[in-house]
Amino acid sequence: MRLGEGVEWTLHCCLTLGWLDTDEPVSTAKLAAIFELPPAYLNKRLQALVRAGVLTSTAGARGGFRLARDPKDITLMEVVAAVEGSEYAFRCTEIRRRGAGADRPAHEFQRQCVITTAMRKAELAWRRELASQTLADILVAAPAAAGERTRDWFDRVG
Amino acid sequence: MRLGEGVEWTLHCCLTLGWLDTDEPVSTAKLAAIFELPPAYLNKRLQALVRAGVLTSTAGARGGFRLARDPKDITLMEVVAAVEGSEYAFRCTEIRRRGAGADRPAHEFQRQCVITTAMRKAELAWRRELASQTLADILVAAPAAAGERTRDWFDRVG
Repeated sequence: MRLGEGVEWTLHCCLTLGWLDTDEPVSTAKLAAIFELPPAYLNKRLQALVRAGVLTSTAGARGGFRLARDPKDITLMEVVAAVEGSEYAFRCTEIRRRGAGADRPAHEFQRQCVITTAMRKAELAWRRELASQTLADILVAAPAAAGERTRDWFDRVG
Repeated sequence: MRLGEGVEWTLHCCLTLGWLDTDEPVSTAKLAAIFELPPAYLNKRLQALVRAGVLTSTAGARGGFRLARDPKDITLMEVVAAVEGSEYAFRCTEIRRRGAGADRPAHEFQRQCVITTAMRKAELAWRRELASQTLADILVAAPAAAGERTRDWFDRVG
């Protein structure tokens, strides 16, 4: 099981936008340069965050991205779901209905498979934990140096 | 994020072995037939469970698999980790050290990245939930028809 690199990228970009806390939108080129990421791939992920309502984007030469809401109103779950989708990691393919189950009456399969129920329970615990943590929490937990590094870089590179 | 089909397959096979509750090992061919699964692929996954100490295997014409322990002593986490490995789904590639971080002093990066910490916290909640559920719990939660279906099929097919 693996989360795509887009989760790491976009979470770092969201923190960066939180640290800069500017009214000016920040371009994909700059966000990519801060972390040496491929701009086109990063842009695709940032657009997914716009569609999910986590970021707003502005077009044009001075365009770019801003947080759509206060960091305390953006959860990690929203960012992860925007990038990875909201499907469950465990996909039940109903193998219980095949082979030994093939000629059994339909009512035997009305209830969700117990394995699916158990696996979903664990995924809900994961989701609940991500939903309980906001960008503001992460900004507070981060060392001061991380925010300074970001702002220094912006002051230099503009 | 997606868990491989091997998780569904092996969890169903473990339940099957729990329902049959026989001293006779059950062959890959039979376990594959119950769910119409490809025997060679299934065998690979079952061998991973043997390596993890969840199943025991016996070679030979009447060989096959048995649960290595009582179902109450086998957790879902053990089965999932055996098949999927125990790496975290979120892989931190330390992008904070690149670009804006490239010429910063090493001590700024001594502490784990706050994003990694937050993502791990969620994964630990997932793991804890899977570790708290045993095969015995699932066997109890399953409808009686599921166990009967398995035993009937075995009585017929032998």
